[in-house]
Amino acid sequence: MLPEREFIERVRRLVRRSKSSRVVRGIGDDCAVLQASAGLELLVTTDLCVEDVHFRRDWHPARSVGHRCLARGLSDIAAMGGDPAACFLSLAVPRGLSQRWIDEFVRGFLAMARRFRVPLAGGDTSSGPKIIADVVVLGTVPEGKAVLRSGARPGDLIYVTGKLGGAAAVLKSLKTGRKPGAATRGNFYPEPRVKVGGLIRQKQIATAMIDLSDGLSVDLAHICRESGVSAVIYAKKVPVARGATLEQALHGGEDYEVLFTARAGAKMPTKISGSPVTAIGRILPRSAKRAVVTLRDAVGKETPLKEQGWQHFARK
Amino acid sequence: MLPEREFIERVRRLVRRSKSSRVVRGIGDDCAVLQASAGLELLVTTDLCVEDVHFRRDWHPARSVGHRCLARGLSDIAAMGGDPAACFLSLAVPRGLSQRWIDEFVRGFLAMARRFRVPLAGGDTSSGPKIIADVVVLGTVPEGKAVLRSGARPGDLIYVTGKLGGAAAVLKSLKTGRKPGAATRGNFYPEPRVKVGGLIRQKQIATAMIDLSDGLSVDLAHICRESGVSAVIYAKKVPVARGATLEQALHGGEDYEVLFTARAGAKMPTKISGSPVTAIGRILPRSAKRAVVTLRDAVGKETPLKEQGWQHFARK
Repeated sequence: MLPEREFIERVRRLVRRSKSSRVVRGIGDDCAVLQASAGLELLVTTDLCVEDVHFRRDWHPARSVGHRCLARGLSDIAAMGGDPAACFLSLAVPRGLSQRWIDEFVRGFLAMARRFRVPLAGGDTSSGPKIIADVVVLGTVPEGKAVLRSGARPGDLIYVTGKLGGAAAVLKSLKTGRKPGAATRGNFYPEPRVKVGGLIRQKQIATAMIDLSDGLSVDLAHICRESGVSAVIYAKKVPVARGATLEQALHGGEDYEVLFTARAGAKMPTKISGSPVTAIGRILPRSAKRAVVTLRDAVGKETPLKEQGWQHFARK
Repeated sequence: MLPEREFIERVRRLVRRSKSSRVVRGIGDDCAVLQASAGLELLVTTDLCVEDVHFRRDWHPARSVGHRCLARGLSDIAAMGGDPAACFLSLAVPRGLSQRWIDEFVRGFLAMARRFRVPLAGGDTSSGPKIIADVVVLGTVPEGKAVLRSGARPGDLIYVTGKLGGAAAVLKSLKTGRKPGAATRGNFYPEPRVKVGGLIRQKQIATAMIDLSDGLSVDLAHICRESGVSAVIYAKKVPVARGATLEQALHGGEDYEVLFTARAGAKMPTKISGSPVTAIGRILPRSAKRAVVTLRDAVGKETPLKEQGWQHFARK
């Protein structure tokens, strides 16, 4: 199997011929952007959640799996500055899975749906070899106002909300055999930054935005590629979550905070809707001589920041 | 695992509280219908395709799997009388699946997408235990004009397009070990009735419509439940595909024709966009005394028509 980026590139090349004027922005951002009506665009995002890849039944309560499945899509809508409008759930489950598990999953999903006022409007079900949920979230955004990944320009500062690495730290402790406990809550019930993303869009704070689902190193590289720029991160500025390491903050995924870029002169609040905002680096011109993203340590030494994706929950 | 109908009922009950005015029609039709703009509604349909449930890698060429995945969603749009607008593909594949398989799958999918002018606008990828594709198709329909499942009234006649049972006949021959050959084409590359559905909606021919994906007995029962009516089918009127049996025409799925109901007095063309149209039965008032759907044989004897769903490709 190809790595996801390569796969997406391949599909993009194959897709190029079938472009349509209705698709404002297709593959390559947090959501697709479609023309809807005068003044409004439609956001669409789909997220696959596969047992033993994105969650493990022996670690994650069914309710948390339902919660997380929808959280991922809501986080994508947040990353465009959109308002969630409706969601769809396609669910494959192994024959013999307990009805209790399914009910708890659905409860976790629907509790989230109610809280974010995003009605479950449809879906599909099937038997399958493992639990597999594909969640679609639709959202809306005023025409031309979606915050894309492609707007970062050299000189822009790079910001993140919240603290990073918490989910990766929990994952590591689960891997070492620790029983899931209260501290795992952030990983089990992440809170998508829908309000934060909406405010960033309304106040026109950001030049580009993405949610931190795959990990800072990977997600910032997405911004750089889509914007045709490079970036430098200052190690000591990265807001590391309690109990996490810098490494986990840089590469651990599933924090569901947002990363955005803004003009260097822009006035930046210290908090947006209660979430702390931290400047962690700067956008640079693209250059063949430097890595897409580099990390500057405390003494000013720069090293390429490898795109180490999010650690799957795979058993091997 | 619950049968799909029961699962959907359960989710519906859980969902009821999260209803929203933006969702014109939620779970329980071929597509969800959402408010879009003045004069236009948005159709959304999602379809899961799971290896060894909906297809088998040793039977179906990768290109046919890609084709079928998208055909299912297009058929749902057709069944509402909508125009397809964009599609999304979430794809999980086992590690080690050949790149050739994936490329062929994507080619089959995109050939279909181009032909129906429905751009692939996004999606997701993951590793997984089997090949699993979840396809979302968005479409549009003039406001209030979607042909729902719920509009059938006692006295209406029941029509189907095309011939039925062909896909089931192919499936049966594959199960007996016959090598897939030219005759399997209809099952491998079904043609969704997008143009037919669109014309039925434009000409206001139908009171209710559904696509025949699960099988006539199941799909007609959906219409009856959503409309609060019963139905009788005349066995000798059912258009049986060459090589298929009446049984296969009644219960075999994946024909991707459309079934619709129309007022008894309505003038009905013999063909719509080249597809033959056949009257096969009549809508009756709902009564506790009769089955939801009954079958009347050649001598006028009526028996309840069991909802025998579509035969999964499961190996057991």
